Amino acid sequence: MRAFVTATLIGPPFSPQVNPHAAAIGEQSTRWAEEFGLVASAAEANRLNRANAADLAARACPDADPDRLALLTDLVTWLFTFDDRCDDDGLGADPARLSPAVAQLLDVLDLMGGAAPAELLSTVGPTGVALHDLCGRARQLGHPRLLTRFARQLRNYLLALLWEAANRERRRVPAVSEYVQMRRHTGAVYPSFTLTDIAHGALPTDERLAHPDLSTLDALAADLVCWCNDAFSYDKERRITADGHNLTTAIAYETGQDEKAALAETVGRFNAGLEAYVELEATVLAGDDPDVARFAAARRCWIRGTYDWSMGASRYH
Amino acid sequence: MRAFVTATLIGPPFSPQVNPHAAAIGEQSTRWAEEFGLVASAAEANRLNRANAADLAARACPDADPDRLALLTDLVTWLFTFDDRCDDDGLGADPARLSPAVAQLLDVLDLMGGAAPAELLSTVGPTGVALHDLCGRARQLGHPRLLTRFARQLRNYLLALLWEAANRERRRVPAVSEYVQMRRHTGAVYPSFTLTDIAHGALPTDERLAHPDLSTLDALAADLVCWCNDAFSYDKERRITADGHNLTTAIAYETGQDEKAALAETVGRFNAGLEAYVELEATVLAGDDPDVARFAAARRCWIRGTYDWSMGASRYH
Repeated sequence: MRAFVTATLIGPPFSPQVNPHAAAIGEQSTRWAEEFGLVASAAEANRLNRANAADLAARACPDADPDRLALLTDLVTWLFTFDDRCDDDGLGADPARLSPAVAQLLDVLDLMGGAAPAELLSTVGPTGVALHDLCGRARQLGHPRLLTRFARQLRNYLLALLWEAANRERRRVPAVSEYVQMRRHTGAVYPSFTLTDIAHGALPTDERLAHPDLSTLDALAADLVCWCNDAFSYDKERRITADGHNLTTAIAYETGQDEKAALAETVGRFNAGLEAYVELEATVLAGDDPDVARFAAARRCWIRGTYDWSMGASRYH
Repeated sequence: MRAFVTATLIGPPFSPQVNPHAAAIGEQSTRWAEEFGLVASAAEANRLNRANAADLAARACPDADPDRLALLTDLVTWLFTFDDRCDDDGLGADPARLSPAVAQLLDVLDLMGGAAPAELLSTVGPTGVALHDLCGRARQLGHPRLLTRFARQLRNYLLALLWEAANRERRRVPAVSEYVQMRRHTGAVYPSFTLTDIAHGALPTDERLAHPDLSTLDALAADLVCWCNDAFSYDKERRITADGHNLTTAIAYETGQDEKAALAETVGRFNAGLEAYVELEATVLAGDDPDVARFAAARRCWIRGTYDWSMGASRYH
């Protein structure tokens, strides 16, 4: 199936770029994860290394300085380790266990990286303490508007995980339109975009951000990142689990097509979405606002970067 | 039990005020709900009237012009009717049915009140079309930053309803700390605050808003509104259902106390929270920023207004 995806998914027509600090920041991020206790065994450390968070982040932020690149890399590392934690012991399929864990992380987010009551940090575990570190560093970068946005987007992500868990528990496969909407949040793409915006210096005014063109572009970019991910990970996911949280599974279930036809439809959606993205981007860029241009560049890098990282990543092999 | 609450809950030390347009806007909001098909029977209309959304909104926005008061009133009306819809036919206790409904409303929110594809509006039902109307009117008020915030907060609210539904389905009573965190979102208090901020002209800078004092004040105000609600509605809720989504139920379940002792603890938490609010508000107001003062005034009005509305409302009798 992967060969089919490689052959048919259109490579985004944006030049691939990689931040030259990738390797050093990758090693630093591994140490960060170890220091915060996010990896508990050699097997987990090995899996994290193969996922190559630094490569993905370095493609999203090709020109970022090391501090900003490190923050995005650590966020991706955090997301990968939390995802693995949810997968490994059934946490992600058990709403009754996941709910208190999510609520604790929401408590952490409410601090937005400000001073934390010692009692809170002593009870939230490594995942919570590491999340507080991420928020604190995002705060230090001095963009309060993006900090607030970042915290709200992570809140959506955490709440959406409960939707996933409830589905998994009952082996429910969501309808395609429902899946597409919820996937934008379960993928944690939006908070990743926000740290990338900080790295790119992409700070459009609120007027611009609330314009339908820009919010549609944002959603399209999030969809493309998620669907690219889904297309490349389908092989691995169907080997490991009968989980319905993949666009191909949702399409197969809703339409009754076999999985090859459903995967072709996933690829078709990605390719059509890419065309729509390129077209809308041209409209958006016609406004000649340098902040909007940086906003679009950050999303381009994510779309192209996810594609290149997926082609190379061993996480999905 | 209600008499106990009335006798022991401390009245917030802020002067009660009511917008003089309350009655007219109340009638207008009833018509709005009818026009959008949010009430399907005389019984539902009657229940909505007794809930008196206009009184609550008029207390939250004593000085607002009719347009802004109407928008908040209609939001509260929308929330009440959606809440009733979730209660009435078991939608709010069935994640498999609630998930697609929530996903559709999230599709609506993604438009942020901008132009909607006709196809979308034809499939989202009265609740979705009415939500789009609210967002469109919020957009017209011309505060893009608050529009974005409003949409994100409503997103959190909708996702948090899925947490509630998963609990209800398995008759799970959450731990107190988990309940307190999630209640902030299931109560839809934050998006209500945001429309109130627009009405009060409360527009602190992003730097101010991201300051821990202000975000803590915001969370405290949300908690007070929710706990006041929980305290007054406990009688009604326990008569109707064995639902665990009331602070008193969560306390009773976690501590093993009887319900009277647990209700006393709910009241105690409210009273202590009110003291903490008043103290923190003084710190916040010492900055002499008129926008921050309006932000605090909006929350004061909500805390006092919820108390007065609860004392009078027949929704909880």
